[in-house]
Amino acid sequence: MSLALHINGMDSDLWQAHLAAQWHDSPVEIWPAITDPNAVEYAVTWRHQAGSLGHYRNLRAIFSLGAGVDHIFADPQLPDVPVVRVVDGDLTGRMSEWVVMHCLMHMRQQRMYDWQQSERIWASDPLQPAAQDVRVGIMGLGVLGQDAGHKLKTIGFNVAGWARRPRQLSGIETYAGAGELDAFLARTDILVCLLPLTPETRGILNASLFEKLARDGAVPGPVLLNAGRGQLQVEADILESLESGVLRAAVLDVFEQEPLPQESELWHHPAVTISPHNAAISNPQAIAAFIAGQIKAFQAGAPLTHVVDRARQY
Amino acid sequence: MSLALHINGMDSDLWQAHLAAQWHDSPVEIWPAITDPNAVEYAVTWRHQAGSLGHYRNLRAIFSLGAGVDHIFADPQLPDVPVVRVVDGDLTGRMSEWVVMHCLMHMRQQRMYDWQQSERIWASDPLQPAAQDVRVGIMGLGVLGQDAGHKLKTIGFNVAGWARRPRQLSGIETYAGAGELDAFLARTDILVCLLPLTPETRGILNASLFEKLARDGAVPGPVLLNAGRGQLQVEADILESLESGVLRAAVLDVFEQEPLPQESELWHHPAVTISPHNAAISNPQAIAAFIAGQIKAFQAGAPLTHVVDRARQY
Repeated sequence: MSLALHINGMDSDLWQAHLAAQWHDSPVEIWPAITDPNAVEYAVTWRHQAGSLGHYRNLRAIFSLGAGVDHIFADPQLPDVPVVRVVDGDLTGRMSEWVVMHCLMHMRQQRMYDWQQSERIWASDPLQPAAQDVRVGIMGLGVLGQDAGHKLKTIGFNVAGWARRPRQLSGIETYAGAGELDAFLARTDILVCLLPLTPETRGILNASLFEKLARDGAVPGPVLLNAGRGQLQVEADILESLESGVLRAAVLDVFEQEPLPQESELWHHPAVTISPHNAAISNPQAIAAFIAGQIKAFQAGAPLTHVVDRARQY
Repeated sequence: MSLALHINGMDSDLWQAHLAAQWHDSPVEIWPAITDPNAVEYAVTWRHQAGSLGHYRNLRAIFSLGAGVDHIFADPQLPDVPVVRVVDGDLTGRMSEWVVMHCLMHMRQQRMYDWQQSERIWASDPLQPAAQDVRVGIMGLGVLGQDAGHKLKTIGFNVAGWARRPRQLSGIETYAGAGELDAFLARTDILVCLLPLTPETRGILNASLFEKLARDGAVPGPVLLNAGRGQLQVEADILESLESGVLRAAVLDVFEQEPLPQESELWHHPAVTISPHNAAISNPQAIAAFIAGQIKAFQAGAPLTHVVDRARQY
């Protein structure tokens, strides 16, 4: 048995070291330097080259190094074996930190107070809303969306969620499917997007969606937070909606093109906050341990968990 | 029965309206325009003039409009009746928002990413710590400190607390008294001060305390957050400790003198974040309802709650 790493845009050597630390007998090799393709039973991938996994006739499973798997399904010659996403408490917690921090910074008007400090102005906004009057709406209620929702709820926000299929979550009102999307948007002051990228969700964050968000909230809004995937958003629409006042602010961790091109107007827009796709940085050790644990259990006869549904692509 | 308002630095008329809305028969009057001093059974105060409460021979209780009561005990001629502080879920929640937001902003290095954005730099810090490796220490474990502690814990931080007397809190390691203060400081990367101002705590946030904070943490530190009272801190020491590197950053909601004087160096120090004593703005309606509820129950024979211990002054 061996592991083949097909990694682009991250440090293959580092991942090889972290994964190799988990095995004493099985080789962990970096494609294309694979000693014996027939020995490869597992592939660990990040933006692998399309077609490059087809050489392994004994391949049993493909692992993503992140929560997203759109980079895997981008391969039209993808072998027909289970695709497993990473679900890791560390990554989940980091995403929730980013979400909670930016919701708080918006509600508490941190940008305004930063400006006031720069001008030596001592003044408090009398209209500071209570958290329960600020309506956060989370698109995507998988592991990440649920965790962020519960933490926002603990802080006191009024939280609802939207997902493709109906969900029951304690303390969080849920909306499901295309039919309930408008009602969800109409009650949302701060929209948090944690959706997977699929053919259905590509470009979903566009001008027509922004227009349906609440405009009567207790905080200046509406506000968009996107930490899902850049291809979920139409950046020209975000800029236009910020200019027209349809959107009040945007906090973006992901972009149509990454790194965000130098010439993008998003960099210097006063109502845009940018993070370099690090809302939830993977902890390599934790992820290597997750993948190793899955493979060891699978080899011992247990089923794989967190297998992606090919039809839904998440 | 009547209520006398002794309010300085806040809008007396506004408070009169909010409190009067709770009573149909009893007058709510603003000192010094009191119709009948002998009818005054309750005083509602904020920085009242020393000696001004001595005229009410039938006074039964004094209420503070905020969580702090140091402004009341500053009066050497304070009548010997119970002093009641405001405990209000709304105020508590707002304080925790401020604490959680600033702890997150520090851990997630928001200021650095803001700077990077201004320079169009796309780069992620590989040393981003996990929340469990960031040690927040809360000084003051009353209602505010406990709520902030539990919410920080939910986000994932490693939280401990210090108070004058021993406390048992679930999931939060506690230290008590002068004897355990050094051990508490030695394990603290982010120090959150929510102490009451008493003769014992005045000036406690000084250079000698800052030197005892942890210097080996997973985040650049140590960091001071103070939302207690300005007189807890020695601002000259904060500035000096920031210059020498003994402190890495300070987030201050309260100041020795408020409003913070225009000439203060704190305004423009790059490692200082200032908010205008609004970490937990009182919601006048909620506070008026709290005071009215207390008085009505007391009139009906129930004991007052949240009565301040005169010896401890909190």
